[in-house]
Amino acid sequence: MIRAQSVVALGGGHGLHASLTALRMLVDDLTVDELTAVVTVADNGGSSGRLRGEFGVLPPGDLRMALAALCGDDEWGATWAKVLQHRFAGDGEMRGHVVGNLLIVGLWELLGDDVDALDWVGRLLGAKGRVLPMALTPMDITAEVRGIGAGPDDLVTVRGQVEVATTDGVIASIALDPPDPEVSPAALAAIGGADWAVLGPGSWFTSVIPHLLVPQLRDALVATEARLIVVLNLTEQEGETPGFGPADHLAVLAEHAPDLAVHTVLADRESVGDAADELGAMVAALGAQLVIDDVAMGDGSPRHDPALLAAAYARIMQQG
Amino acid sequence: MIRAQSVVALGGGHGLHASLTALRMLVDDLTVDELTAVVTVADNGGSSGRLRGEFGVLPPGDLRMALAALCGDDEWGATWAKVLQHRFAGDGEMRGHVVGNLLIVGLWELLGDDVDALDWVGRLLGAKGRVLPMALTPMDITAEVRGIGAGPDDLVTVRGQVEVATTDGVIASIALDPPDPEVSPAALAAIGGADWAVLGPGSWFTSVIPHLLVPQLRDALVATEARLIVVLNLTEQEGETPGFGPADHLAVLAEHAPDLAVHTVLADRESVGDAADELGAMVAALGAQLVIDDVAMGDGSPRHDPALLAAAYARIMQQG
Repeated sequence: MIRAQSVVALGGGHGLHASLTALRMLVDDLTVDELTAVVTVADNGGSSGRLRGEFGVLPPGDLRMALAALCGDDEWGATWAKVLQHRFAGDGEMRGHVVGNLLIVGLWELLGDDVDALDWVGRLLGAKGRVLPMALTPMDITAEVRGIGAGPDDLVTVRGQVEVATTDGVIASIALDPPDPEVSPAALAAIGGADWAVLGPGSWFTSVIPHLLVPQLRDALVATEARLIVVLNLTEQEGETPGFGPADHLAVLAEHAPDLAVHTVLADRESVGDAADELGAMVAALGAQLVIDDVAMGDGSPRHDPALLAAAYARIMQQG
Repeated sequence: MIRAQSVVALGGGHGLHASLTALRMLVDDLTVDELTAVVTVADNGGSSGRLRGEFGVLPPGDLRMALAALCGDDEWGATWAKVLQHRFAGDGEMRGHVVGNLLIVGLWELLGDDVDALDWVGRLLGAKGRVLPMALTPMDITAEVRGIGAGPDDLVTVRGQVEVATTDGVIASIALDPPDPEVSPAALAAIGGADWAVLGPGSWFTSVIPHLLVPQLRDALVATEARLIVVLNLTEQEGETPGFGPADHLAVLAEHAPDLAVHTVLADRESVGDAADELGAMVAALGAQLVIDDVAMGDGSPRHDPALLAAAYARIMQQG
């Protein structure tokens, strides 16, 4: 039995939701005693994009989803999480808006403090951890993309999370605009004080790598004594990572943050398949350990199973 | 010292908000141990009107305002009440929408039960009473209005709460469409089991009298042993009640519900002024007692002071 661990999880969207659902199980079984999510705030589509455009606020969607993943197990937490995740249908002006996004924006307007407002939603949900934005400034992701310009090797700049995530070209690199956004002291403190940092899974270029492009976050991840677990995606993702194998995911991560020390790379056994050797070489070159485990849903969907992911995290943490 | 009283308050809008704020004080000092609001659901304007039009739901605005009036005194209740009352500004699609309205509609969609959803919001706020809709069917108010037709005595039908409340003519009578909406058993039980029913203050034709036009509610008010306090408005209201004195308010109430027994009519001293004799005769004709007390804000605004109103309610209840 090791002492309970403190964990900071970085990412966005459905990938972070799965990872947080897993980590929350480890809070329940006392493996983890402190859990903080640091969430991308570069979304420019859907309900979040509309609210960001209308009010100049951070896009709330990924933050809301992370909060919902951490909701309490009782009827109270579960019901409010469902309410916050509820998306309006129909064909009127509210179509596509999500209740929790509107609540978060209302709290931001009322309280004037992004982090304080998210803590209020966390208390409403009885959340088993804290959710923080990656930065306090709304930002755009830009990508240098090959294959959509005049010549096959021309690089074209694509701007916006939605546009980058759905480009027909091949992403060569990404950047943030503004390049040096303000970061909350709470996020830096969480990274500095954690035993473990978990990065991924998720949309690689638009939810995972962006954290490494915020200078203050990257510096904190480089400086911290927290051991970094990188969780690889189960498959390539149309638009962002077509044709990417496990080693390719890791390669672009290393390109975007060459000074980052990786402790463990966690990959799904079936997803790795016969790419294990290539991945192993890449992981070894990074000085990390490779853990190959069964962590996929196993239903053909490219989703991680939170219970299996929790078990894998627990084994990694127990080995240290 | 009398035993604690159970109270049902009927109305809508700012008038009901003031009355509930007063009654909540009586919950705090243990004069009242059970408080239920039964709230008009005929609004067709603003955020409520837009949501009603888009989703076919009850207009949530008056319900939200009543819930906010009953919020807990602690930071938790007060903060969530402020969030729920927060109205979006700006010039985009959300302009004018109110956070609590959106939350209530989300809960209605998710839970499929109007009353259960309002109870969830009540629990969120730590509300010191229960808020119920007047009916489970969205409805329209229609008015027979004189002075806007071809001849001076022609009656023209005006439809919609907003349209009725702002008509240039003189309202002769109002009706509901549908005329016999479904009523929640909880509202009937609250009226049946109360020691006191409080009707008004508020927009007379669009927030106060509508309750008496719902057959099941009127029958319950006639049948109950609860003693009915009618709280008169402080002034005439442009649009609805131009030129109306205190006795006129009472006269139209009696016209719309001739079989209703009134126990006490509560009027503000300064507002009544030299109309006291006329009002006294009208109250006597109804078989009720007249209580004239200082209950206005006294700042020139036509608003009741909740603390003064609470004191007046307490005196009336103590005398029985």
